[in-house]
Amino acid sequence: MSAKQEKRFITPKSQDVSQWYTDVILQAELADYSPVRGCQVYRPYGYSVWEAIKRRLNDRIIATGHENVYMPLFIPKSQLDKEAEHVEGFAPEVAWVTHGGGKELEEPLAIRPTSETTFGVMWSKWLQSYRDLPFLHNQWANVVRWEKATRPFLRTLEFLWQEGHTAHRTEDDAREETAKMLEQYRQLACDDLCMHVFAGRKSDSEKFAGAVETWGIEAMMPDGKALQSGTSHFLGQNFARAYDVKFLETDNTEHYAWTTSWGVSHRIMGGMLMTHGDDKGLILPPRVAPIHIVIVPIHRDDDRQLVVEKAHGLAAALREQVRWRDEKVEVKVDDREGLRPGFKFADWELRGVPLRIELGPRDIEAGTCVLAERLGGSKSNLQVDFATFSLDAQSIAEALEQLQAGLYAKSRESAESRVYTVASYDEFKQVVGQGRGFVLAPWDEEAATEARVKEETGATTRVMHPDLPGDDVKCLFSGAKARRLAYFATSY
Amino acid sequence: MSAKQEKRFITPKSQDVSQWYTDVILQAELADYSPVRGCQVYRPYGYSVWEAIKRRLNDRIIATGHENVYMPLFIPKSQLDKEAEHVEGFAPEVAWVTHGGGKELEEPLAIRPTSETTFGVMWSKWLQSYRDLPFLHNQWANVVRWEKATRPFLRTLEFLWQEGHTAHRTEDDAREETAKMLEQYRQLACDDLCMHVFAGRKSDSEKFAGAVETWGIEAMMPDGKALQSGTSHFLGQNFARAYDVKFLETDNTEHYAWTTSWGVSHRIMGGMLMTHGDDKGLILPPRVAPIHIVIVPIHRDDDRQLVVEKAHGLAAALREQVRWRDEKVEVKVDDREGLRPGFKFADWELRGVPLRIELGPRDIEAGTCVLAERLGGSKSNLQVDFATFSLDAQSIAEALEQLQAGLYAKSRESAESRVYTVASYDEFKQVVGQGRGFVLAPWDEEAATEARVKEETGATTRVMHPDLPGDDVKCLFSGAKARRLAYFATSY
Repeated sequence: MSAKQEKRFITPKSQDVSQWYTDVILQAELADYSPVRGCQVYRPYGYSVWEAIKRRLNDRIIATGHENVYMPLFIPKSQLDKEAEHVEGFAPEVAWVTHGGGKELEEPLAIRPTSETTFGVMWSKWLQSYRDLPFLHNQWANVVRWEKATRPFLRTLEFLWQEGHTAHRTEDDAREETAKMLEQYRQLACDDLCMHVFAGRKSDSEKFAGAVETWGIEAMMPDGKALQSGTSHFLGQNFARAYDVKFLETDNTEHYAWTTSWGVSHRIMGGMLMTHGDDKGLILPPRVAPIHIVIVPIHRDDDRQLVVEKAHGLAAALREQVRWRDEKVEVKVDDREGLRPGFKFADWELRGVPLRIELGPRDIEAGTCVLAERLGGSKSNLQVDFATFSLDAQSIAEALEQLQAGLYAKSRESAESRVYTVASYDEFKQVVGQGRGFVLAPWDEEAATEARVKEETGATTRVMHPDLPGDDVKCLFSGAKARRLAYFATSY
Repeated sequence: MSAKQEKRFITPKSQDVSQWYTDVILQAELADYSPVRGCQVYRPYGYSVWEAIKRRLNDRIIATGHENVYMPLFIPKSQLDKEAEHVEGFAPEVAWVTHGGGKELEEPLAIRPTSETTFGVMWSKWLQSYRDLPFLHNQWANVVRWEKATRPFLRTLEFLWQEGHTAHRTEDDAREETAKMLEQYRQLACDDLCMHVFAGRKSDSEKFAGAVETWGIEAMMPDGKALQSGTSHFLGQNFARAYDVKFLETDNTEHYAWTTSWGVSHRIMGGMLMTHGDDKGLILPPRVAPIHIVIVPIHRDDDRQLVVEKAHGLAAALREQVRWRDEKVEVKVDDREGLRPGFKFADWELRGVPLRIELGPRDIEAGTCVLAERLGGSKSNLQVDFATFSLDAQSIAEALEQLQAGLYAKSRESAESRVYTVASYDEFKQVVGQGRGFVLAPWDEEAATEARVKEETGATTRVMHPDLPGDDVKCLFSGAKARRLAYFATSY
């Protein structure tokens, strides 16, 4: 963290979300540009937020019975080429290693854009009988996709993610897994990251290269655009056939396994950051905040020692006494010298720390301190006995709970109020063109219709609504019979 | 974990350590070969051991004041070229990306073999004043070095590691950091992994490309060879000059920072695995064992339900009641059907689980069960009230403590008893040639002497002994005045 007390300027969020996002990412020292085009540097504070998100998601993945593994970074070209749709989809985005050990390689190696290929090859080696199934694997890894336009967290050449890969005995088992992980992603977004999402199946033209079905969660950003925040793919037997992943059934007949894959990347962190902040900076959901409470001592030179000492005592007491959702809280004392309290307040507001405690000499005498919360900015008094450090731990837990719930309520209300149903294609164009939000529209499920809408408006289908349109409902675009209700939006 | 009750054969460790190592790695399902030469696949059990080691080391890195970051996988050729010694040392091992996004790149990108370069570039951007220092960064990452001969964990093209990078205001601060992290590595090896190591400075010819001094920890493998298990580099101002990492002092003069780097890879896991096991398989130190206790229910068909139920009850009680070094223990019930208890015993012995509990119907009646420990194979009775599951939790903690201490004592005694001092170069050749261990020999500190010994015997200097030779001691090889006492050995 920089100790410089310099003037900062953040573009107001209401004025330009996109510029606000870049300003905040850089000035809160979450990430920085790197010497390599399109690759970002995670600075300590940004990486600690990612580690917190990773921990929440990893807990969900392990609790649902999966095991972590790690597969190689490289994929030989001949292996990647085996699943035709898959390679066609990824070929334009692949980075190739052609030289190693001072020589040109006999076969180029792809840097993994995703690892279905390698899991397929290994499973084919490991799988023999139905008794070996299911394989429930996950890996945390870096992957590379050669993107043109990039933005920190939202789209980068190299990105950090988890990719789950599972193989099952039956189609039903694989479909159930696909749905189960989509629901885990939905809960991660809503319950941990306080970011409301729309979950559903993606259209055929929007699905993963090689999948039978792709399901996804889509978040609505403040500018009305959609951010794909996680996907769960039912791969049928496509990859099993390509990589010869088969097993013997009880009756000794040979069958291909049914496989799935699912992934969430650091992109979901970008979505979370963009969803919550305000003109002062970030607001981090307590469930993934690396620091829950910052204590700012306020003092003159002559009472500095006392106030800083009591601030550290209070921090220790909070760590010891407060339990929120059965976990301890992280507390930081900002005892940097030579900086005004006002500067420190702004600095931690910029970084989105959920709660701030202000502590001065008169507070210590009076047995109280000021507790300020980041979302609404409200302040209250917290009673503390500064001799014994007994305090009302429950009120801190309640403040965190309230902030977590409040952030999600705000996100949900904002997203749901901006889903439009429209009477005409003209109205559709207005909503989409003005960045007002998503349009839920009846669609004939034809790829040609989807392509025309994309060309004419920039909007694509994001996910299907779980309900089907009524029998006599017509497609908003073609006038033909509507087969789906789809969320349309322009997207990141 | 495979459910197959097939015949396994592990080469006895006493007969052929090298083959034993490969057999155990594959059959305990720690790792497997991958479709890419020299890259390994981490299977679930192997990855969980690595995650445990990573957690211990990460705790040490954070506790000593460092922050985790993440830098890009790629390094542009022009950046890597800036530190002459560094690039000369690494050039033969670099993998190059030459194509991306369907085009040949204007500048090839190296896959990081290590990241001094990128940290240098970023620090140069972030560093302004002495107030910004120190930078205390660490990253967990995959790196690639184009090795010819490879072995799981010990030497692989892609490997997982942490690399610490720090920048300081003064030379003393940087030297202190170098020593501090070497000591953390020594403690990790000895206290957590129970693997005795020799710590010291490396000779100039064995140091890191671009370093002023390299310090390392060296373990002695059962075949007498040395395994470099961690290094800590004092880089002086070499990288700061190459990447323009400078700052303003209080008097407004500009100075280059003093930097360090230090790394431990999955190689230390390979060393730990090779150090401890026996003819039955692995023995994992409790501090890094993913499973501390396995419970094997022993039953006939008609009492299966009762025994398995009590086994799970006992597992829950152990998780709840046992605390070893302030942490909970991981307990697994092996209730796989259709496998004999004897097979299960052997299976978990192969995987090196520290403690096994055997539980049958008569044990339940008698309020007892058998506790077997992996290192010495001793068995004792554990009293358990199978109605309330009250049990002697302390005795489990003691068994774990004893195993942790016992493993280290064994490793230390084995390593220390195989350090030889010899009277002649002939005797040196015998010790080294027969794989008996390390030789601690007086050396004139000439690179030419070192090179000749290497050529004639295959042995290199591993680290320097902290003591200096007496004034009249001669170099064992040249007869010139000895300047150092060095540990010599052949190495992995």
